[in-house]
Formats: sequence, structure tokens, C-alpha cells
Amino acid sequence: MRESHEPEPGGPERWPVAGGPPFDPERFRCEGRVVVDWIADYWASLPTHRVLADVEPGEIAGRLPAAAPECPEPLAAVLGDLERIIVPGLTHWQHPGFFAYFPANASGPSILGELLSAGLGIQGMLWTTSPAATELEGIVVDWLRQLLGLPDRFRLGGEGGGMIQDSASSGLLCCLVAARERSAAVGPGQGVVYASADAHSSAVKGAKIAGFPAAAIRRIDTDGSGRLRPDLLEAAIRDDTAAGRVPCFVVATVGTTARGAIDPVAAIGTIARRYGAWLHVDAAWAGTAAICPEYRALVVEGAELADSWGTNPHKSMLVNFDCHCLWIASRHALGGALSTKPEYLRTAAGDSGAVVDYSDWQVSLGRRFRALKLWMVLRMIGAETLRQRVRDQVAWTAEFAALVALDPAFEILSPPSLALVTFALRAGDEATAELLTRVNRTGSVFLSHARVGGRHAIRLAVGGTLTSRADVLGAWGVIAAAAADPDPASKERGPGAGER
Amino acid sequence: MRESHEPEPGGPERWPVAGGPPFDPERFRCEGRVVVDWIADYWASLPTHRVLADVEPGEIAGRLPAAAPECPEPLAAVLGDLERIIVPGLTHWQHPGFFAYFPANASGPSILGELLSAGLGIQGMLWTTSPAATELEGIVVDWLRQLLGLPDRFRLGGEGGGMIQDSASSGLLCCLVAARERSAAVGPGQGVVYASADAHSSAVKGAKIAGFPAAAIRRIDTDGSGRLRPDLLEAAIRDDTAAGRVPCFVVATVGTTARGAIDPVAAIGTIARRYGAWLHVDAAWAGTAAICPEYRALVVEGAELADSWGTNPHKSMLVNFDCHCLWIASRHALGGALSTKPEYLRTAAGDSGAVVDYSDWQVSLGRRFRALKLWMVLRMIGAETLRQRVRDQVAWTAEFAALVALDPAFEILSPPSLALVTFALRAGDEATAELLTRVNRTGSVFLSHARVGGRHAIRLAVGGTLTSRADVLGAWGVIAAAAADPDPASKERGPGAGER
Repeated sequence: MRESHEPEPGGPERWPVAGGPPFDPERFRCEGRVVVDWIADYWASLPTHRVLADVEPGEIAGRLPAAAPECPEPLAAVLGDLERIIVPGLTHWQHPGFFAYFPANASGPSILGELLSAGLGIQGMLWTTSPAATELEGIVVDWLRQLLGLPDRFRLGGEGGGMIQDSASSGLLCCLVAARERSAAVGPGQGVVYASADAHSSAVKGAKIAGFPAAAIRRIDTDGSGRLRPDLLEAAIRDDTAAGRVPCFVVATVGTTARGAIDPVAAIGTIARRYGAWLHVDAAWAGTAAICPEYRALVVEGAELADSWGTNPHKSMLVNFDCHCLWIASRHALGGALSTKPEYLRTAAGDSGAVVDYSDWQVSLGRRFRALKLWMVLRMIGAETLRQRVRDQVAWTAEFAALVALDPAFEILSPPSLALVTFALRAGDEATAELLTRVNRTGSVFLSHARVGGRHAIRLAVGGTLTSRADVLGAWGVIAAAAADPDPASKERGPGAGER
Repeated sequence: MRESHEPEPGGPERWPVAGGPPFDPERFRCEGRVVVDWIADYWASLPTHRVLADVEPGEIAGRLPAAAPECPEPLAAVLGDLERIIVPGLTHWQHPGFFAYFPANASGPSILGELLSAGLGIQGMLWTTSPAATELEGIVVDWLRQLLGLPDRFRLGGEGGGMIQDSASSGLLCCLVAARERSAAVGPGQGVVYASADAHSSAVKGAKIAGFPAAAIRRIDTDGSGRLRPDLLEAAIRDDTAAGRVPCFVVATVGTTARGAIDPVAAIGTIARRYGAWLHVDAAWAGTAAICPEYRALVVEGAELADSWGTNPHKSMLVNFDCHCLWIASRHALGGALSTKPEYLRTAAGDSGAVVDYSDWQVSLGRRFRALKLWMVLRMIGAETLRQRVRDQVAWTAEFAALVALDPAFEILSPPSLALVTFALRAGDEATAELLTRVNRTGSVFLSHARVGGRHAIRLAVGGTLTSRADVLGAWGVIAAAAADPDPASKERGPGAGER
């Protein structure tokens, strides 16, 4: 640990005063500009950073004081430590060479929306606690519903509605609880949850949290393209029904994490409806691609059978994390399961039924004003630019995949699904894993891995704010060069931040 | 609905360009300054706003376009609508006259921390996905642990540890799931949850989400001071144990919402331990007062018996929502219950056990870099200023209560607990409710209500960033004047944002 909070050595402190009132408008103007400039400089410098942090466990903590300071320090001291200690220990998700996991891209308008939300500092837990926060959220989420071509059953003002949650995991959990309550009449502990073997881990996590025992969670096998097999789903449901269990919740995935597979939602929805189960569509990553008419049929097919449908503008749609949009067909099913209104949270408006108190639709009571950032992205970037970005990213991914396919050392494990492709070395899993480690250690790109068809796959997910065609094709250059020139010394490192 | 996105009438657009790349550093510098200035102006203007919004359901939505724009709009257009349409529909939580619910106060350093978090745009879901985010969080949460005087069992690097969650509700849910799993060996559906009749609604909500049937949730009666009665808790646990049920989770509240009561945590903890139940301390509001040595014994008493202990710097400690700090005694109990690591989330560092992957300790996978704002508040405001604020707020609340007690028309329903006091008109519940409605409609203050000792109580919770002694005493002036001069016309309004 560092001994103490060291004074900032040298350099002009652009706002030298420490202490003072916790919010002073003139000081905020001054310090706010410094931080805005810092962020602008950070983004301008992003290509010069290593994408994946290269630090050992405990290395960053060891550079920080073990106890808080007693006296106030100036902003310059904090920004100095941010620059010297924190930034070198970050994995830079906004770097143009970030192709790992799924993107969590941000944008100028979105960052400003988050800033405004923090600056206003209001709570949207009840309609009354800031009516405009609830109403703007309803409106902008409905704007997105229309852009995606989602059905009227999720429309603002009808039986259903939309909202913003922090994440797809939380959204799924809330819907699962509503489904569990809807089916509860038939006896506790008998409900069953279904999701494909490739569904996101949040399905299993949500089921665990909601109290479903492991034996009540069915992972349905996928076809050769990674899509849930409806015939196996129906067989599993029949078996459960015959055994006195109750089909409760079916997750259909639109864009699996491993390979971007899109489950046959309409077929799944027909089965779910036949057996009275809740259909939840997890379109966390692929969902926003439906803003392009050419991908809409693929992405929103079957949504008219869904009880809930969610997607993440915080993945590829330039809204910074967190912004999960969730639509539900029955606000009563969700609110009925989650609402717990003690006297101190009751209001005339809430009691009247004329408004939505969004805290009744989520785990937490408190709510940030997240609608601002979605509003600002939709208005300041505009739908047409958002569409063009999807088209570009899909095209670049296809170009990348074509280059991989031409290299005899490599094979495509799953063809491009929108802006995601997976591939491997023909030499086998160990060689592929070792190659990925070396590629990520170059610091110029970061890709992650998955199991695809039983193989260790390298995933390329395109969607970064700054990522261009040249970055995507450049990533292939880095990978091909690493494959052509192995460096066995790299195998000797310990458990640092390098990907396994 | 407005017909379309109208152009901004008149006025110089300080950044006239619309469209362009989603992040352009030079444009961000320019637009960022405009937004920073907007926030500074907003805070400077706060006393001129009505605290509680005075709008009807649907009024704000009706002023917004029904569909998103196709083409990009300039920042000035958005800020114009924010000013004209949104701000008039907000309830201003940072207003010096906000005394409702509990405070959700913000500060310059905290807003800048949130801005930096959005600007960096990294994900702290796994240690590897940004090591410095995980390590800074561990460090600053441990700084706070030391400032509060919480025991070593929650220390960073031991068997336990600390983290930031979005809210006390989420933190409680995660601990409840861990407790449920810890006791699961004895059979599903047999676990019981205990909390006082005055515990926060999040206890019941968490239990519902985690699948506890209503019959497995015991609300234990309180004593005349609103504190959970340990004798009744033990009797309930004995009854349950005798009936073959398993005491699973006990919530002790340090600072109830209705009246700020502080449960006897040590006595409760001794009982919980005797019967093998998990003790969770919900110190969401009162917890941060322990930074003052004179309140520490009151607030952290019994913490050494707790399996989990949580408080909200986002209430009174100048960290803008969301920032719930949660400490746990056993990281294995929490991680074991919530971890669901598919192949694509496995990393060398995570597998080594040398690091914490914080997503294993929470509902969601994704994580914002919340540690920055707590770090900036602790460094730029400093512990001593934070302590002085608590002392001032407690003193002002006592002064306010003394004035209430001197007025023969009023009575104190619960004496000040830290910076919260409740009171009522002697004329009865209806008169009290009607008075509160009129007080809030003045627009100069906003107080909320609760049930205290079976009575309709007005609550005054002090803690706003800008709230001064004059504002607190001024609130009494508004209340006393309204009580002295009733205006029956105010009874005729519909279900607007006015408090019931």
C-alpha cells in the first residue's frame, strides 16, 4: 500500500481549491470542464492504450492508500491518480480494437445524458417522485418499440408497456417471478423453467435466485446451428406435464452469446402458449438490429407470442451501460408479482391507477433517470445513423469471416450472425486457446472465447463506437500474424488479466 | 402528443451541428461544457422551483412526440425540451426544501465521478474485464468500512469483503438467496424470513422474489419505540423450529423508514446465531452516520454478529444514487449461491481464485464503475466535512422538533432519530393528512408521510446537499402557517402529483 495520500507533484492545478460546499455552481463549472476535457483526451488517446489490462491481481490495490483521507483533496490530485494508477489497470471497452464479449458502446450524447441524470439527481421510483422521469421513460421506450417493429401488445398505454432496467439479467428475473406467481395456483415448487443449452447464464442465475431448484431448470439441446430445438422443448414439457410438474417459463434467445444463434421464437412461442408457460425473449444483444428493416423479420419474429421481450441499447446502440429495455404484455402480471407498497410509498396518483410506479416493475425501489440517455441518443444520433452502423458492422464482420475462411490454418466454427463470428485453428483447442492468449497479449485487440459445437472458439464481436472497417480487418492481420509466428515464451505467465 | 420534433425557436445554438461521429472529442468538449453549465445553472436555480411537481398524469407525455426522429438534432434542441417540458414535471430531490422519504443527495465530486464512469465506459463484471475497477471498489468500500468502524470480519482480503450494489433492495435479495442456499440442506420451502413490522418493504419484496411464500415471512411486532422485540423474535423462531421449519434469514433494521428506529442488533444477532439463521443488517439510511464516533455505538452495535451489513452512501453521504455498500462475512456463501460461470465468462484470473469477479456477488452480470464516485466524494469532500454535515443535520432536526413540541396544535409522534422526526396534528389523522397536502402544495417544501404508532404521521428527513438550518426552520414556518390558516379549496384536486 502507498503510505499516504501524496500531494500532486508539479503541474498546474486547474482548480487548486479543496473543500468548500458539496455543490458550488461556479466550482462545478470549472471542475466539470476539466473532467469533460479529460474524457475527450481519453477517447482521443484510446488507440494508444493496450486494450486488455496487463496487471497482476492486487497490483492496482497495492498502489492505493489503505485508508481514506481526513481532509479534502483537490480534483487535480484525484485525476492524477486516475491517470497514473487506475487507467493502466483498465481493460478499455471503448478501444477500437475491443472485440470481446459483446460491445458496451458509449457515445457523446449518451455520456451527456448520464451526466444530466446525475446532475438532476432525481428519483423515478414512483410517478409522483418525478412524473416527467416516468413519462419520458414510457415515451422513449415506446419510440424504440416502434423503431424495432415490436407488436402493439407492448405499446405504451395498453395492457402492456415498456421500461428501462439495468440489465437483461434483472429484466429476466422480474419476468420469471411474474411467471412463477402466475402459475403458483397449481402448487409451490412444481414450476419448470426451459432455456436452450446455449441460453445466457442469466437464465439459470435468475431461476436460482427465484428459488427454482436445479432439477427444475431444463437446458434444451440445440440444433447444428445453435438454435433451441422446438421438438425437444415440447417433448420436455410433455414429460413434465405428465409428471405433474407445471411448465412455467420458457426463454427464447435472439442472439446467443457463444455464436449469435437466433432461436425459432414463433415455434417456441406456439408451444409455450399451448402449455400455458410464459415466453420471455432474451434479445439482449441482437434485438437492436431490428431497427434495420432487413433484419427485422429475423429478430422480432414471434414477438407477438411473447409475454416479455428485452434488448440492450447498452450493447451496440451507443447508449452507455446500463440501459436494458424490457417490454411486457401484461403490466398487471408484472406489477402484481413485484409490488409491495407500504403506507409510506402510497400516493394519490399511484392509488388512482392512472399512472405507473416503475419501482413496482423491478427489484429495487430507487431508480435513476436513465431515459435521458436513451432520449439523447435517439434524438442527437438519429435512427438512420444507428441503422447504418448496424449495416456497416454486419458487412465488416462478413469481410473478416471471408478472410478467415481463406486461411487454410483456420476454420469458421459458426458463420457470421449479424456482427458476430466464431472461428478456430484447425490444429485443435489447445492451439486455438494459446493463439487467443498471444493475440490478446499484443495489446492491440481483445477477443474472447466460447464453446461452439464442442470446440474452443475465438469470438469476434463487432460494435465498438470507434471501431472502423480498418480496425476489423486489422484484427485479422494481428491474428494471422500471431498464428504464423508462435512465441512459446508467452505460455509462462501467471494468472494476470490475460484471457485464459 | 406534439405533432413533430419542433426546431428550437430563436436563441443561439451553442453547438449548432447535428449528426457526425458518435464520439468526436472536440465536439464533446464543447457540448460537455454546455451541459456542465446547464447543471450549474440548474443547481443555482433550485430554490426557485416548486419542490413537488404539480402536473397531472399524462401531461408531460402529451407534450412529447409520439415517435423518434429520423435525423439527428442538435444538443440545443434537446436541452430546450429538457428545460421547457421535462424540468417542470420533475420533483426536485436536490431542492433545499426536500424533506420527503430519505434524501438522495448528490455533490459536485459525485456527479463528476458518475461522468467519469460514463466517459470511461468500462465493465467491471469480472476482474479481468477491468482489474482497476474491481480493485478500486474493494479499496474504497474498505475505506468506508474503517470510517464506519465496522468489524474486521468484513475486511477486504479476509473471508468476507465489501462491494457496491445499486440499492439496499438488491443487496438484501442477494444475501437472502445466499442464506436460503446455506439452509437448503434441510429441505426446500421450509425456510422462514423474519423482519420487524416496520422493516423496509424491500425485505418482503426480496423474500417474494426469492420464492418464499407469504406464510414464510414473519413480521415481528415492535416495541413502543418502533424497535423489533427480540423476545417475540425468539418466540416466533421457536414456534417455527418446533413445527419443522427452518429459521433462515433475520433482518435487523438500523433506521426504519417510518421513524428511524434502530433495532437491538446485538440481541437479535445472538438469537439468529443460536438458531443458525443469517443476520442481515439493513442500515440503508442510518448506517453512514457511524462516520461520527458519537453515533457509532448506536449504529454498528452488533455488527460483529452480522452475516451481511449494508448502507447507502447515496442517501445522506453526498454520493449520487446509486451506491449501496454491502459487506459480507463469507464471500464463499454469497459467491457460491450466485455464481453461474459459463465457459465464455471464465478467465485465468477468475479460475485461480486470486481475484473477486464481482458479478458473482450480484443479480446482474454487467457492472458500472461506481467506485469512482465514492472515491471522489471521500477524497474531495473528506471525512471531516462528512461528519460535520451529519452533526449539523441532527442538530437542526432537534431544533425543528423542539419548535413542533412547543405548538399546542401539534404533537411529536416519534422523537428525533438522527435527522428524522415524525409529528402530527392533535386534531387527528384526517387533519394531519390534509395539512400535509396543503404544505406540499405550497411548492416550497416537500415532506412525506408514514404510519407511526397507528397514527398518520408527517415525516421530516433532513439531509439535502443544499439544505441549511434556515431551510429546516423555514419548513416549520411553512407548516405552522398552513396549520394556522386552512384553505379548504385545496381538497378539490384530482390525483396529481400532490402527496396523498
